[in-house]
Amino acid sequence: MYQIAVMGHGVVGSGVVEVFYKNRESIQKKAGAEMDIKRILDLQEFPGCPYEDKFTKDFQEILNDPEITVVVETMGGLNPAYHYVKSCLLSGKSVTTSNKELVAAKGAELLKIARENNVNFLFEASVGGGIPIIRPISQCLAANDIETIEGILNGTTNFILTKMIREQMNFEDALALAQKLGYAEKDPTADVEGHDACRKICILASLAFGRHVYPEQVQTEGISGITLADVEYAENWGGVVKLIARAQKLENGKVLAWVGPAFVSRESQLSTVDDVFNAVLVRGDATGDVVFYGKGAGKLPTASAVVADVIDCVKHVQARKYLYWEDGSPDDVADPMAAEAELYVRAVSGQPHRALEEIKKAFSCVRMLSRSGAPRDELAFVTGRDQEGRLRGRLHEMSGWLEPQSVIRVLEDQ
Amino acid sequence: MYQIAVMGHGVVGSGVVEVFYKNRESIQKKAGAEMDIKRILDLQEFPGCPYEDKFTKDFQEILNDPEITVVVETMGGLNPAYHYVKSCLLSGKSVTTSNKELVAAKGAELLKIARENNVNFLFEASVGGGIPIIRPISQCLAANDIETIEGILNGTTNFILTKMIREQMNFEDALALAQKLGYAEKDPTADVEGHDACRKICILASLAFGRHVYPEQVQTEGISGITLADVEYAENWGGVVKLIARAQKLENGKVLAWVGPAFVSRESQLSTVDDVFNAVLVRGDATGDVVFYGKGAGKLPTASAVVADVIDCVKHVQARKYLYWEDGSPDDVADPMAAEAELYVRAVSGQPHRALEEIKKAFSCVRMLSRSGAPRDELAFVTGRDQEGRLRGRLHEMSGWLEPQSVIRVLEDQ
Repeated sequence: MYQIAVMGHGVVGSGVVEVFYKNRESIQKKAGAEMDIKRILDLQEFPGCPYEDKFTKDFQEILNDPEITVVVETMGGLNPAYHYVKSCLLSGKSVTTSNKELVAAKGAELLKIARENNVNFLFEASVGGGIPIIRPISQCLAANDIETIEGILNGTTNFILTKMIREQMNFEDALALAQKLGYAEKDPTADVEGHDACRKICILASLAFGRHVYPEQVQTEGISGITLADVEYAENWGGVVKLIARAQKLENGKVLAWVGPAFVSRESQLSTVDDVFNAVLVRGDATGDVVFYGKGAGKLPTASAVVADVIDCVKHVQARKYLYWEDGSPDDVADPMAAEAELYVRAVSGQPHRALEEIKKAFSCVRMLSRSGAPRDELAFVTGRDQEGRLRGRLHEMSGWLEPQSVIRVLEDQ
Repeated sequence: MYQIAVMGHGVVGSGVVEVFYKNRESIQKKAGAEMDIKRILDLQEFPGCPYEDKFTKDFQEILNDPEITVVVETMGGLNPAYHYVKSCLLSGKSVTTSNKELVAAKGAELLKIARENNVNFLFEASVGGGIPIIRPISQCLAANDIETIEGILNGTTNFILTKMIREQMNFEDALALAQKLGYAEKDPTADVEGHDACRKICILASLAFGRHVYPEQVQTEGISGITLADVEYAENWGGVVKLIARAQKLENGKVLAWVGPAFVSRESQLSTVDDVFNAVLVRGDATGDVVFYGKGAGKLPTASAVVADVIDCVKHVQARKYLYWEDGSPDDVADPMAAEAELYVRAVSGQPHRALEEIKKAFSCVRMLSRSGAPRDELAFVTGRDQEGRLRGRLHEMSGWLEPQSVIRVLEDQ
């Protein structure tokens, strides 16, 4: 009999308990062993809950219980999750977590501790909720060299952008609707400003490329500046605006990573990923493009991913899973300004005719865009591909003629 | 040092050797062990090949070599692959295969032998080429009850249908083009008539639902009867024609499985899967819809999936992977005629006005479809949902007024 502890009885944690008891028979069959949940750690009271007797407020009751072999962490945040998880691994317990903030900040360190203590540290649920992505990348694509990972990793912002694209709702109204429907938090900063997507791309990039990419190394921009004008110009260009997280291994061995709004061509599979859905595209040297798609959040999808990790921990109490990356360094990550890019620009100009001439001179492959009802002083265009720093430099040089309101990357087609 | 044998040096087998030696260093790192390919079995000669000294024409040299612990089977077909694979498993060697015909026909038996001999029998490459799908279903979705699996599992027919939809090419021309480009065999029967997709859905259904579903139990129809008229009516209806393979667990515990052309709504993620791409949608009780998308065939994608299985075999020489299903029986599979469906019908009638009245009487939720340039005696409609047998019975009763030319299922939206 394997005993499990669940730390945190919020949305995901209570879902883990629910999924476990609902499908316990098939879960035990798949794990090839008897299992039970012995302790649930939460500071709140849950009177009348059918598992009331399992609750504890004292982490030491879990840490010091030699019967507990697998610990689930669904508390979220860095503290005290980091301390608790580290202590469990050091005391020889396997840990599975849905906490992307923890993995993005401390993944390399915790993986190392897990290895040194011959236990597993798994986190399938930290990216893409119920979409299997961590395990396919680490196992199924083991015979590939991964070149690029790009995706729509945040459901809240994808919902907001979908409303803007399909129903011409403006950003503020779409955000208010997302909050009303429970898709966005009261304080939506982590989603809307791209921090959540940034943590997830850090985890995927670290896994795919073998060295830790830290959130502070990834240029991150949110969608709060996106207007309906940008959405219309994207339509005219032939695509949609999406919040994209992207990591690419460059030929010099460095990782180019960014999070930000991007123009995505209608030809791309990512362009049809709407509402709260997420999708991750993995480009390998042998497989070509593989896309994983599904609901990226939600109680039961995320909980089922955690429980699958628990099964894996039980099946591998003796054998360690291969899931590892090294510590990272500032040198690992490339400067986006030095890489190739294409930019969409929406700007105003007091002398639009003169500005148009300057734009055509500055960007050799420029393509002007149009929308109905545009103010006469508005200009919009995509620049053609060049070094991003050079493109932005040219825009800066034109600041006498042209005042950019919005600058968005164009996602490269393959 | 783990020694590997590769049986069959055709497209996939030579790809396995190529991928192995190209990425050997990272493969060994991931496996945590040294590995080499010791023998390659093929009846042909490969003079000048860099691995010439490894070739053998004698299967016994592999079977009787105690150093060989993992055997790759990429010969295809049932014989002698079945005999060889069975012998290897019985003698304590793990086997990984890309041979869908073998797994669809003999999976349950070979999995049982593998279990009895404490070795692994893996076949990630048998479905979806380089798209990870077998492993995510068996592991990542372990905490789910899977309800439905549906997908576009054959790239050749998807290429042909894409040409018909996008370029109004007729079936014969699109097939000829597919053959010219190497996407279709000289004898295209297995692809075009749905047998290949049938084998794949058998494997996925067996894995998801735990009991073997055999190809002869699955009602299978190909796309050779699809015309440009059907493509136009699908467009008018609001979708596209795709060759769909589908398996669903019914409430009575039986599996409903079929392969055939289907109208797919533009709202479905499957509708935008074009050209030679494949996609598999898995609907779980906890995860909701998860879609796996990528190139479903090709030398390197398929080979990389095989090599990933080899890595898994080496890592699990002592521990068995959970991948198992029981033998099946005729009672496991439901009769599609007894299940709910909606049908698209294209028909001719000598008395179209009278026929229209009869159609409206027979199908209460009928929706008539139109296309430009339709002959005056042509009628097309979708029936609304009802028991499939009842719908077909009503069509039969109208045979005096209406002569169906094409009857295609409408894929249910979720």
